[in-house]
Parts: sequence; structure tokens; C-alpha cells
Amino acid sequence: MSEAVIDLVVPTYDDMLAARDRISPHVTRTPVLRSDYLDELSGAELFFKCENFQEAGAFKVRGATNAVFGLPDRQMAKGVATHSSGNHALSLSWAAGRRGIPCNVVMPRTAPQAKKDAVRRYGGTITECEPSTSSREEVFAKVQARTGAEFVHPYNDSRVIAGQGTCSAELMEQTDGLDIVTAPIGGGGMISGTCLTLSRLAPEVQIIAAEPEQADDACRSFKAGRIIADDAPETIADGLKVPLKELTWHFVSRHVTDILTASEDEIVEAMKITWKHLRIVMEPSCAVPLAIILKNRDRFAGKRVGVIVTGGNVDLDRLPWMKGI
Amino acid sequence: MSEAVIDLVVPTYDDMLAARDRISPHVTRTPVLRSDYLDELSGAELFFKCENFQEAGAFKVRGATNAVFGLPDRQMAKGVATHSSGNHALSLSWAAGRRGIPCNVVMPRTAPQAKKDAVRRYGGTITECEPSTSSREEVFAKVQARTGAEFVHPYNDSRVIAGQGTCSAELMEQTDGLDIVTAPIGGGGMISGTCLTLSRLAPEVQIIAAEPEQADDACRSFKAGRIIADDAPETIADGLKVPLKELTWHFVSRHVTDILTASEDEIVEAMKITWKHLRIVMEPSCAVPLAIILKNRDRFAGKRVGVIVTGGNVDLDRLPWMKGI
Repeated sequence: MSEAVIDLVVPTYDDMLAARDRISPHVTRTPVLRSDYLDELSGAELFFKCENFQEAGAFKVRGATNAVFGLPDRQMAKGVATHSSGNHALSLSWAAGRRGIPCNVVMPRTAPQAKKDAVRRYGGTITECEPSTSSREEVFAKVQARTGAEFVHPYNDSRVIAGQGTCSAELMEQTDGLDIVTAPIGGGGMISGTCLTLSRLAPEVQIIAAEPEQADDACRSFKAGRIIADDAPETIADGLKVPLKELTWHFVSRHVTDILTASEDEIVEAMKITWKHLRIVMEPSCAVPLAIILKNRDRFAGKRVGVIVTGGNVDLDRLPWMKGI
Repeated sequence: MSEAVIDLVVPTYDDMLAARDRISPHVTRTPVLRSDYLDELSGAELFFKCENFQEAGAFKVRGATNAVFGLPDRQMAKGVATHSSGNHALSLSWAAGRRGIPCNVVMPRTAPQAKKDAVRRYGGTITECEPSTSSREEVFAKVQARTGAEFVHPYNDSRVIAGQGTCSAELMEQTDGLDIVTAPIGGGGMISGTCLTLSRLAPEVQIIAAEPEQADDACRSFKAGRIIADDAPETIADGLKVPLKELTWHFVSRHVTDILTASEDEIVEAMKITWKHLRIVMEPSCAVPLAIILKNRDRFAGKRVGVIVTGGNVDLDRLPWMKGI
């Protein structure tokens, strides 16, 4: 029901440039890290774009900030709203807090306490729903009707995709040419932003999306030529469970070179390798690109590969290699 | 016995400049990270210089690389040697590997397996000793006599201190002026390098060293006006158990503003806060500066504070907040 109000205009390269100007006072120009050890292990030259270092911990602040700061003044009092159990909820709350406007978030009551705490710390208001699509849509429709807030979808939103596209623009400036850019794919917001930017800025760069085997709906969609959505897939890469939507399918179907998958064990192993050798805290979702690189050595060896590290909001008391959790 | 051969010339600012030129092709210019959250928590503006992102995982590559690449060609065949159970052993092995010369390391047989593995991966040769000073000195003297290797002390070495001094030179370039620089203190190599550089480059900057309460020999030395060395202190900040020596005492006694201490619990808490909000993997030792900042809010609030994050080689299976270890 609520989905009907989404602005489904396909964003353009100029929208990305406008987003860059709009968000640059607010968003961190994250560093690119290297590791000789990981280069040796992969046979490639890897450039890790560390979006986990964004203040709210994820690339999602780019799209959220673009949406929030692009709102007309007349909408300020009513603010923004979204449904998300993860980094988009945090990021939209954070961006709204910076502009001083209300942010209403519908979250499943089962969402991690740490994420709820962060939303509130940034000034967001949480309305809880049951952990089902029907409950979420019903509760969200009520919240939106009551508040008149502008809906900012986590990824199926032109403003959000244009914002995410600023990441690969920075990455290209920070490196001296790349052969491949790889990022995890869930709903496809980051990959779509990457397509938007690189298809114009550096069309020779391959875009390879990385997905958990256990939530491989984007991979199957890519092969089938149409969106396939799974019902509640289970993977440790909890940011990647959501399906593609119209706008992200637009970009994925036109500009993505390939979608490769990795098993749960391969993801955890790649996560631990990165923590140990790159010495960054990142989410399981961010490890999927390194997992597919190590699994498909022939495909990446000898190449200059940009790896987008999407987020770093993890529960340090429940790391996947800890015993008995 | 072996200590007699150390070159105890006090390094100069020009030595630091020469070190910078010598090591810059090898050593990472590490990024400076910020966090609004940590700024709010501390009331200060914090600039984290992330030496944990060095390839070998610690600032110690700066001093080690300066020593290794400053060796005359005639010494190349005999190489370098040291005794260390920690990051200096890794860093010297790594630097020697880059120059293609032998590196002999005397390590206690009880040193962590991960550290031994890393030394070997970088091409170093390990000779084990018992975990006592007498055994270490005896074994090291034999190794040095047999190999003719150049001894590179972990910190009581002019070349090493000049190398460590390059870190704060970078930090000053990367920030727009600082009021205070803080770093952990163990043997005092990083603090001495910081003193060497800042006493000339920015003498108005206060240098505040951070030490575990349970290994507070540097703090007591500072107050007593002479070196006090403890026998085997116990602290989670395992890089900070060693005592000051002549050269580091020279700098500490002349240029350090103060030495503040933190308890084990305060260190673990600061470590977890940093992992969570800065999203970096760092050692317990690196958390001591944030621990003293949060403990002495009045001292740091309103100030621009550079925090040197010294290293990131931790055992991910044995994090201090994990239960039952």
C-alpha cells in the first residue's frame, strides 16, 4: 500500500553529481585501505573502500543524507519515515538528526537492541511491528498517514541510489584506475549506485555483485532475466536478505557484469581474514566480496579490484567465530 | 651483555627527517579517523592516527624499517637481530624481508603462536628462549655471536626512535593543529619519537603518555625523576609491560607533559567502545589513551587531541570481553 507513493524516476549521472554536492558537508570521505597480504592471497590488487567508517557505520548514510537534505523546506516539519531493521534506519535517523527534522522508523520488535538504541540515539522515533511483511506494511501505512512523513525506501528510491553512487565516484578518484568493482548485493542499492556512476564515468570497469548462496535471489534474477524474490532467506549476511525492486533491477539488469555467490563458511572465513589482516570491524555482509574473490581466483587474479566495505555495525558479543553462540 | 653494543647516540630532528625519506617507500601513510560519537563522549576533538593499518600491524615498522634500510651494504649478509615477543619482532622481520636480508629473532617459547607464525611468514628466523630476562639475554648473545647480526633494540635505539618520530610528523600534516598528542607508553619508543618530532615541530603541543595502572613503572619513574623498572607486571595491555631505558628516559624526562594511568576495566571498556564506534581492530594497549581521556575529562575537554593507535595484532579468538577466557 505504502509502496505506491515511491518516486520511481530512474536517477541520472547528474543526480549523482548533485547528491555529491549535497552530502559532502555531512558524509565522510572514507579512506581506501590496502593489504599486501590480501593481495598475495587473492593474486589481485585490492582497494578496500571503507564505508564502515561512516559515522553511522554504513554507506547508507549517503543515500539517506541525499534524501533528507534534498527535501523541500515545506516538508521539514513532517520529516521522513522508513521501514528497516538495519543500517538504513540508523542512517536515515542520523541524517534527519543533522537536518533537525523528525524521522519515524518502523522496525520489527525482534530487531537487535543495539540497532534500536542507535536509532533513538540519533533522534529517530521507533514504531514496532511484527516481523512479517504484512504487519510491517500495515503499521508503516498508519505511521505515514498520521505523520505525513516522506517515505524514503531503503533502496528502491531514486534519491537513495543517486546518493549511493557517490561512493564509487570517490573510489575512482582515490585509485589510479580499476578493472573491477565488487560490492555485496541485497536489495541492490549500492550496486545500482555503482552502476549509475561507473556506466558513465568508467564504463570499462566490470561490476561484479557478491551474494550469499543462501540468499541468492539476485543471482537467480540475473540469470532468469526477471526479479525473483525469496521469502525470508536465512544467512549470516543479514543485510542481504531483501529482494531486488523495480529501480534496482533496472540497473542490475543493464550494467552488472556478473553475480557470484559464497557459502556461509566462506563468508565467515573471509570476514575473519579481513578483521585480522586489514584490521577493520565490518559486518558479515561486507565479507561476501572477498569470499567470492578468493573462490574465483582466476577471475580476479592480476586485476585491480575495488571492494566496497559496506558497513561495520556488528554485535561484538556475538561474533560468528565465537564458540557457543 | 648484548646491551653493550647499542648505539646510544640521542637522535635529532634531522635524523627523523632522514628516516622519513628512507621509510616512505615502504611504510603506509596511515589515515586519521574521526568519530562524532567519541568526540561527544569525551568532550574533545579526537584525531585517531591508525598505525594498526600498517602492513605488519603496528607503528613499529617505522623504526624497524629505518634501522634495516639504514644499514650499510656490508652488513646486509649478516642482517639484523632482536629479542621481542611482540610487534617489534614482526616489524623487524617484515622490514628485513623487504630488503632481502636475514632477521634473527629471540622469542620466549611462550610467545603467542600467531606472532611466531607472522615472524616466519615475513621470513624471520626464530630462536626460542625461556620466558625470563636471563635466558633471553643468554640466548640472544649466542645468536648474535654466531650470526654477526646488527642488534636493533625494540626502543632503546636511536634509529628506532627517529623512525617512530615520523608518525607524529604525519599526524601534524594531517590535522589542522593539535593541543595534545597522547600515546601509550611501555618502553617509550613511540612517546620518545613523538617528543623528538614535536619538541621541534610544534613545541606548544602537550605530550601525554597513557599507561596501565598495573604496569605504571613509567608513571612512577616520571614522578621520581629516575628510571624505575618493574619485574614482570601483569596487564591486558601486553605491549606495555617493558621498562624505560636510557634513550627513552632522555625524551620522557625532558618533553613529556604528564603520564596518566587507567585500570584494566577502563582499558577493556575503552577498547570495546573504539571497536564499536571507530570500527577498527586494535590491541588493548591502544585503548589506554582513550581510557585516560574518558577518565580525565576536564583535562581533555575542548581540546584537539591526537591519539596514536599503535597496533592491531590481536587474537580474534580471545577478545577480552568474551566469556570464559
